Amino acid sequence: MIVNGKTCRTIWPDPDNNEIIKIIDQRWLPHKIIIEDLKTVDDFATAIKDMHVRGAGLIGATAGYAMYIAVLKAPKTNPGEFTEYLNNAAQQLIATRPTAVNLKWAVDRMLESLKRVSLKEAQEEAFKEATAIADEDAEFCKSIGQHGLDIIKKISEEKKGKLVNILTHCNAGWLAFVDYGSATAPIYAAQEAGIAVHVYVDVTGPRNQGARLTAWEFEHNNISYTLVADNTGGHLMQKELVDIVIVGTDRTLYTGYVANKIGTYLKALAAKDNNVPFYVALPSSTFDWKRRTPKEIIIEERGGEEVKYARGWDESVGKYTKVLLTPKNAKAANYAFDVTPPYLITGLITDKGVCKPNERAIRKLYNK
Amino acid sequence: MIVNGKTCRTIWPDPDNNEIIKIIDQRWLPHKIIIEDLKTVDDFATAIKDMHVRGAGLIGATAGYAMYIAVLKAPKTNPGEFTEYLNNAAQQLIATRPTAVNLKWAVDRMLESLKRVSLKEAQEEAFKEATAIADEDAEFCKSIGQHGLDIIKKISEEKKGKLVNILTHCNAGWLAFVDYGSATAPIYAAQEAGIAVHVYVDVTGPRNQGARLTAWEFEHNNISYTLVADNTGGHLMQKELVDIVIVGTDRTLYTGYVANKIGTYLKALAAKDNNVPFYVALPSSTFDWKRRTPKEIIIEERGGEEVKYARGWDESVGKYTKVLLTPKNAKAANYAFDVTPPYLITGLITDKGVCKPNERAIRKLYNK
Repeated sequence: MIVNGKTCRTIWPDPDNNEIIKIIDQRWLPHKIIIEDLKTVDDFATAIKDMHVRGAGLIGATAGYAMYIAVLKAPKTNPGEFTEYLNNAAQQLIATRPTAVNLKWAVDRMLESLKRVSLKEAQEEAFKEATAIADEDAEFCKSIGQHGLDIIKKISEEKKGKLVNILTHCNAGWLAFVDYGSATAPIYAAQEAGIAVHVYVDVTGPRNQGARLTAWEFEHNNISYTLVADNTGGHLMQKELVDIVIVGTDRTLYTGYVANKIGTYLKALAAKDNNVPFYVALPSSTFDWKRRTPKEIIIEERGGEEVKYARGWDESVGKYTKVLLTPKNAKAANYAFDVTPPYLITGLITDKGVCKPNERAIRKLYNK
Repeated sequence: MIVNGKTCRTIWPDPDNNEIIKIIDQRWLPHKIIIEDLKTVDDFATAIKDMHVRGAGLIGATAGYAMYIAVLKAPKTNPGEFTEYLNNAAQQLIATRPTAVNLKWAVDRMLESLKRVSLKEAQEEAFKEATAIADEDAEFCKSIGQHGLDIIKKISEEKKGKLVNILTHCNAGWLAFVDYGSATAPIYAAQEAGIAVHVYVDVTGPRNQGARLTAWEFEHNNISYTLVADNTGGHLMQKELVDIVIVGTDRTLYTGYVANKIGTYLKALAAKDNNVPFYVALPSSTFDWKRRTPKEIIIEERGGEEVKYARGWDESVGKYTKVLLTPKNAKAANYAFDVTPPYLITGLITDKGVCKPNERAIRKLYNK
């Protein structure tokens, strides 16, 4: 996607020096665009752990490149030492965010590919495989965009070309992947196809990823958008100001239950109550083929401090500052996700196509 | 209610000097408790306009005392001059927040009462009437508390005395009235009756009145509470962590439609979806006997800056600071209220008793 008028991914190898991988350090968005050079396995581990990068797809791609850098740095005279070095690097990376499915998946895939080649070919193979992981992530998202485009196009036609209003929650944008994003991919595709779109972006408290990240993406890619408080979506739908809701997901069960950022369920209820189509966009890798019921999904509980404080840019001094919203001793609970049941969901937009949120339709789409 | 261990109202005459009316300047809560002395009509106009005081009941009581101070300051030698002075003061006060129903109502009531007495008796009469307005507001809220207590008591009995979990939105607390509050009155009454209660308090963005005001009230009155992001209520109800929702209202139509702080509708949807009883608490003065349908309710749109910035306490420098959450040029919409339809509401808790949210039941309760 575009940053300051130039095409950019969230992660890419330095074109002048293939021992350096570059990322956007997302902790500083939207107020500073800081590009970070990652040169060692430690750099990568810190970048993932401290959330310089975040989002399922992007974490996977970062782990892939991290293993490439591990191969670069590994001793290459003795195959035993080489393998030991790689395995240690793999363990170090996986430990950074143990619940991120794509992290372990990417590390394992890198180790697997290296088994097929000699020590001499390892570096080239690792670079090829890491690039493949990143490229595939971008391609999957692009494909989600094309399938979602069909849905938006149909709404646009029904509205005789009038503005299509979309509501989204949190950041399921290109910043969470390598490019395009999941929920945002159909929006970018629609804009490219010349369809008039406008997006309502939920602030998405307590971490405000909508206000910080999705707004920043749209700002740089000329998507018309309006930020709204999380409380607002229901009212917008009652007033017929929303034609379609598109959100991402952190985990979708093969039975159609969708775990996503806390608050998604409330917007799905409002969509149902107002006959607004509610879609979930996801790459194939986000399906959970083991868990059947929402009770099996563990909802991450984060620290209450995130609810009590707001972090933002203090314009009077030109730096990030956190401010306390509540009484000092207030107790706060901070559930990170909720689960939206299938009966509130119109369809799932995947890289393989669109399907209904039920076991039969999902299995059919994936021949499983 | 209680502040720092002492009984307190939101507005009261100085016991040592009846030419001074005292208020809690709510702009500084929760991080500073500043008591302000109001001595002139200008002081009152500023306090209402700049929201040192806010909330339907409290605005009415403040306007009553403002007219008493106007009588104090008015020239008393010539009845014509006296009346002219009073009418000017009345106009000045009403203009501060033109949409506040209770403001004009209280000013008119004061003017009406003064018609009954001589110039000599005016001061005494004005003080009596202003005190009556404040006392009635407190009594109405206390009465809401008793009717709501019955509902909470029943839930407590069904749960065999186990903790009753209540969810509330925004601040419909004693800070919005003279004492007790509307949605909070049943909670305070339940605590006094020895029922084990715990309250989930929505942060209530963008102005965060739950985080700032409701949390502060509960902190000082020893109500067990947990602050949650606005996105959280649906998940809490899915997990059976909420036994009852109680909210306030800014305007309730005689047909049962409830206008309240933006986001109320989303919580009502979640309550319905999870069979959680959803109650609205209100004094009789909040009923709108003219408007029939939600389309007739004008929803206030406020500036987008409230969505883009968070205001809170910067602990590193010990002062209130506002921080920018979004890209500098982000566009934001800021709808202040939404309307919850009757089919999502279990009942209305009024000072006259509890009734269903429909025209027949409401008219019956009020003999109208």
